[in-house]
Order: sequence, then structure tokens, then C-alpha cells
Amino acid sequence: MKLYELVGTDRTQGFSPYVWRTRMALGHKALPVEMVPLIFTEIPKLDFCTAKTVPILEHDGNYITDSWDIACYLEDNFPDRPSLFGGAAGKAYASFFHFSSFYTLVIPLFQALAYDIFTCLDDRDREYFRRSREARLGKSLEAAHDRQSENLAIFHKQLWPCNSILKAQDFLSGDHPAYVDYILYGLFQWARGVSSVTLVNADEPLYHWVRRMDNLFGGLGKVIRPRG
Amino acid sequence: MKLYELVGTDRTQGFSPYVWRTRMALGHKALPVEMVPLIFTEIPKLDFCTAKTVPILEHDGNYITDSWDIACYLEDNFPDRPSLFGGAAGKAYASFFHFSSFYTLVIPLFQALAYDIFTCLDDRDREYFRRSREARLGKSLEAAHDRQSENLAIFHKQLWPCNSILKAQDFLSGDHPAYVDYILYGLFQWARGVSSVTLVNADEPLYHWVRRMDNLFGGLGKVIRPRG
Repeated sequence: MKLYELVGTDRTQGFSPYVWRTRMALGHKALPVEMVPLIFTEIPKLDFCTAKTVPILEHDGNYITDSWDIACYLEDNFPDRPSLFGGAAGKAYASFFHFSSFYTLVIPLFQALAYDIFTCLDDRDREYFRRSREARLGKSLEAAHDRQSENLAIFHKQLWPCNSILKAQDFLSGDHPAYVDYILYGLFQWARGVSSVTLVNADEPLYHWVRRMDNLFGGLGKVIRPRG
Repeated sequence: MKLYELVGTDRTQGFSPYVWRTRMALGHKALPVEMVPLIFTEIPKLDFCTAKTVPILEHDGNYITDSWDIACYLEDNFPDRPSLFGGAAGKAYASFFHFSSFYTLVIPLFQALAYDIFTCLDDRDREYFRRSREARLGKSLEAAHDRQSENLAIFHKQLWPCNSILKAQDFLSGDHPAYVDYILYGLFQWARGVSSVTLVNADEPLYHWVRRMDNLFGGLGKVIRPRG
């Protein structure tokens, strides 16, 4: 099994939040995987697959793209391993969180991190990234960076339901981690991989949740070294 | 089993969104219940219980208050009946939705409906409701009503993750309804009970979801007649 991921100049520090969902899902299923680092502009040149984004999972001659489809593929093809969703209602939860977190969490965090991501990129990716992301942001990377603290505050405010439920349980999924936790953890890994910003404070339940997540699967997430 | 609910001048049209969560939960568990209608100002005068709000569930000499605690009580005490949550991850989903929908859905819908609720109330409740709710709104009921369409638009916008997941499945919980569906349905019953506003359009997945919810448990939800 191979997992194609996204890196910058440091090819050990894969920072894609969507790849991190898949890495944690593979850890959950205890499936060994070979990581294949790519930079942005290498992805459209892959000759085996038309995907424009990572993660791409290669398994048994299949190439599965899109992190959600990969999660469903792993759950369906490895039913004897621990369940990634925790049943039908748990899968619905992951689907709901996948959709709802896109606007509430992914977009403000992208706006906060866009410039930091740029600084981590291989030189060959910089022009592509600046052009495509400035179009998406509607402003320059530097102008977005000037509003980093405001966007982090928006992101942080939207974390409150997560903090609320983590007062009564260790993981978003209950007593045990599942895919909904990996969706959120991917965002923390994204920030950790490209930036020195602080997303949550030590007095918040999420702070302790991040530590619990870091220790899963032999400390898998800790391959990303804090910056700055 | 008795369920204390909230009514206005028409004692058959209980409109509390939190009571509706419980009514649907009792339907899900196929538990017969006697409804006990109360008006707002009767609740603090109950001599058997210190609850300030409904629902209150009376069972075997116990009085359980707070809709979430009632849901957990029903799940724990009637484990042989259909599961209300669909397992631990499903319970976590319901908890997450309970928290996240409070700010995204309950508050804007309350702001949109506050004046309409007032018009349905028993005369003995009107002074209490106006005083307490105007303090909460920070404006008069009439001023809130002037912004009804704006608040409905905010509510509607926040429904998008629900519409998104209902493109691929019949219920928020998956192929079968569960408590997270009852949380949302309570809001639709609230609006139906006090107002003639339209919450969703016929081209949205949620429109068809409401019809499916209406038909559950012998058409339980249809005791609330559309107004206007």
C-alpha cells in the first residue's frame, strides 16, 4: 500500500490536512503504508492517475483518490480491522463533520496559514501556489498573512462545540478515537507542519485532546516537528 | 410515563423544540406517554420538581429534566428497544449536533420566531415572555419580528451541511432516523407550531426529509397543524 502525500522543501514533513486524515485512518486500521512525497506541481504529472490532489492511495493496483472515498474504501475492504467510523451513525457523524467543518474550520484556517504554507514550499511550487491561492483568497498571500490573527480567532471560535463535547469524553467520537477525530486532527497537523501559530490554549479540552491524538499509533502524528 | 410539555392558547399544539426531541425519542422507543400541557408560568409552580423548563419526563416516580438527560435515560433504561443513538459514535454525533446547533440554528430561529411565539401564548404568559425574551434578544419582540427574514436567512444558510449529507442518505443519522434527526426536527416543529414561515424550499433534500420525519411513528409529528 502506498500513500501519495504533499510536501515542501522538507520531504519528511507532509502537511496536507487531507493526507493526515488518511494517515491516521491507516494507523487506526493498523495497515502499513509506504509514503510517497510529492510537491504540488508533480501531482498533475502523475502518469498512472488523473487526480489533481492528494491523498492518493495505491492498493492492489487500484488508485483511490479523495480522502473521504479512501476512508470508505478502507472501512469496506478491511472490515475485520477496528471500525473507522463506529457503525452507520458514526459514519453519518464523520460525513456531517466533513461537510460542516469545511466552512467553519478549513476555510478560516487556510486563510490564516496560506502565507506560511508558501514559505515552506519547494521553489518549483511557489509561482503555482501564489497564483492559484491568491485567486482563491481574493488577495495577496501577504495581505492574508496580515489578517492571520483575525482568521485564527474565527477558527478558534468555531471550535467551541468540540471543546464542549470534550469536557465529557476523551475523543470527538466518544471514549475511543475514530474518523471524525482524524478529520479535526488533520487541521492541527496542517498548522503544526507549516507554522508556529498556537491554535488552542492549555486550559482547553482540545489542548489535551491533541496530546492524546499525538500518542496514537506509536506517536504517528509526532513525525511533524513543531516549528519556530 | 408522563411528559410535561409547553403550550399556548391551543393546548393540543405543543411547540417546544426540546419537548419534540423527547416526543420523537419516545416514539423511536415505542413507549406510550401521557402528555401534560403546561404554560410557561405554570412550570416554576410545579410542586414535585424544581425544573424551570420542559420537557420533564415522569417515570417510575423519577422526574428527569433536560432533553439530553432524558434521551440518555431512555437509552439506558430501555436497552432492548431500538437504539436512540446507534452506538457510542452515534451518541457522540448527537452530542456534537446538540452543541453545534445551538448557536448555528436554535438562536437565529428563536430570533425569527420570538414574536410569533408571543402571539400564540396564553394571556397569563405574555408579560413574562415579553420581559424575559426581550432581555435575551436585546430588543423588543416587534423589532425582532422586523428582522424575521434576515434571521431566517441566517438559519437557512447554516442548514447547508444537513442538505449536503441528505443528498446521499435519507436521514442525518444514515439510512434510519435517530436522535440527531429528532434534534433538528424539533426546530421544524417549533416553527410549524407558532408560525407560517417557510424554512426550506421544495428543491432541497431537507424538504423531503421533513416529509419522511412527519411520517414516522404513525405520523406523530403531524399533530402540529401548519398555520396560516
